[in-house]
Amino acid sequence: MAHTFICSDRVQFSDTDMAGIVHFSNFFRYMERVEHAFFRSLEFSVVDPPHHGDERVGWPRVHASCDYMAPLHFEEEFTSELLVEEVRNKVIRYLIRFWKTNGILAAEGRITAACVRRDPATGKLKAIEIPQRFRDKIEAASHEALKRPEKKSL
Amino acid sequence: MAHTFICSDRVQFSDTDMAGIVHFSNFFRYMERVEHAFFRSLEFSVVDPPHHGDERVGWPRVHASCDYMAPLHFEEEFTSELLVEEVRNKVIRYLIRFWKTNGILAAEGRITAACVRRDPATGKLKAIEIPQRFRDKIEAASHEALKRPEKKSL
Amino acid sequence: MAHTFICSDRVQFSDTDMAGIVHFSNFFRYMERVEHAFFRSLEFSVVDPPHHGDERVGWPRVHASCDYMAPLHFEEEFTSELLVEEVRNKVIRYLIRFWKTNGILAAEGRITAACVRRDPATGKLKAIEIPQRFRDKIEAASHEALKRPEKKSL
Amino acid sequence: MAHTFICSDRVQFSDTDMAGIVHFSNFFRYMERVEHAFFRSLEFSVVDPPHHGDERVGWPRVHASCDYMAPLHFEEEFTSELLVEEVRNKVIRYLIRFWKTNGILAAEGRITAACVRRDPATGKLKAIEIPQRFRDKIEAASHEALKRPEKKSL
Repeated sequence: MAHTFICSDRVQFSDTDMAGIVHFSNFFRYMERVEHAFFRSLEFSVVDPPHHGDERVGWPRVHASCDYMAPLHFEEEFTSELLVEEVRNKVIRYLIRFWKTNGILAAEGRITAACVRRDPATGKLKAIEIPQRFRDKIEAASHEALKRPEKKSL
Repeated sequence: MAHTFICSDRVQFSDTDMAGIVHFSNFFRYMERVEHAFFRSLEFSVVDPPHHGDERVGWPRVHASCDYMAPLHFEEEFTSELLVEEVRNKVIRYLIRFWKTNGILAAEGRITAACVRRDPATGKLKAIEIPQRFRDKIEAASHEALKRPEKKSL
Repeated sequence: MAHTFICSDRVQFSDTDMAGIVHFSNFFRYMERVEHAFFRSLEFSVVDPPHHGDERVGWPRVHASCDYMAPLHFEEEFTSELLVEEVRNKVIRYLIRFWKTNGILAAEGRITAACVRRDPATGKLKAIEIPQRFRDKIEAASHEALKRPEKKSL
Repeated sequence: MAHTFICSDRVQFSDTDMAGIVHFSNFFRYMERVEHAFFRSLEFSVVDPPHHGDERVGWPRVHASCDYMAPLHFEEEFTSELLVEEVRNKVIRYLIRFWKTNGILAAEGRITAACVRRDPATGKLKAIEIPQRFRDKIEAASHEALKRPEKKSL
């Protein structure tokens, strides 16, 4: 079953740089924005509330990347499309595509988030197995959904 | 004794916007940068470590403002000059001036930071009197220093 | 006639700082966001397209300020309310209030934007009288609208 | 000949997020900061001035990635080490490592920047061969320099 989650957004002035386009670092903020909206859609928050007396779970990034195809400009509307590429034992891998309204792919990014919990003994964050309550709701997108479409109308 | 503290800095690409100049919101980051450097120069940190069993002290802003005179451009070097305008019972008021290397005033900002501590009973932040250990080291600048100079060579 | 313009928004993770609340500089981005949405609602853009052969008009800030009453937290929804406080000869003054969903005022900011055009002779930006096409659509909010409400349900 | 370029920096408050560490997107700003400092060290600017009547050259990103090993905290000093991994016909590939003062690798990123020039006919940016004046000064780091060290004292 494919997990595809879609958000609409608009480029803000402070997202641009002097080249007149969205600064490349801001695509990582856009990725996070749709990831967190996806969590909310499942009635989770990445800032996990205490749960049955367990220490709260966090989702720091271990990897992030982005390929840039076409720049986004000030006030341009775009769509962020998130796919759950893989749910592993301790990490989730997301694929995020940014679409212009004319169906052009602006950028394609990936985030790998680890599931961590603070170790009460050492106070340090430690990777843990993704709890079942998350795993039950988050599943990897189907292989079909991950094929890159050449063109897309939204 | 005047508390004037000076930092040198350079405009980064991601500080600019599509107008080709530093985005107006980033001057508030620049203000904070020199404020925190000032604290470090006194061997404090705005993220106060625990002190003699007291709850740690924080410095949230209650007011911030900026007047913009001349834009700063990419890679331009500038100087941030901090003056302690007033140390009141529970707040410190800073005046920060941003100077171009040619002595032109680029912008002039103000921050009012309140001294707060978490109330153990309610868990809420509460304004407190500035502890003497801070007050001893932070003193207001002289009236002379606070007059706006027309031109200044640094 | 009052010009009140309202936007809904949500605090993003990258808007927060290690104090767990929206970094004070980001309220200035929030102010700009509602200002630009207001312009779009009038079918303008702050990035003015060429108009009848005239040089394009820009709106740099000459002043910005914010008073902080109550912090905003991650994922919190809030409302940005923009009022046109004054339309002067060459500048517009905006008042922006940020409301929590429970009607508490989180912050109140002001932006003064100057109307400028590039001087073809010198290449420098120069303050100009606000063109009538803008003035016709933007009018000062009534005195009534600017009184600060004690409490407000949205 | 290895091109290794090193900058020192310090984590600013506004770089942190509510998890108390540098927000993952800000490592991309840190990468750009050292890249641009590297250009300045060669007496270039990424914002290329007009050169012998040619259209100016730009360096937009076509790819960026980061692996996160150990978080950076507020006020922590760190070193950004840039290596020119490869100079291809139309792109430069950089490898950037972020070191804690104790020699621990905090993060390792990559940027691929394309050399572009505006096509006078279409007005569009077009990838071009990297001009010789850049190529002469920028050379790929040696294979030796690119082996990841297990530990490093700076």
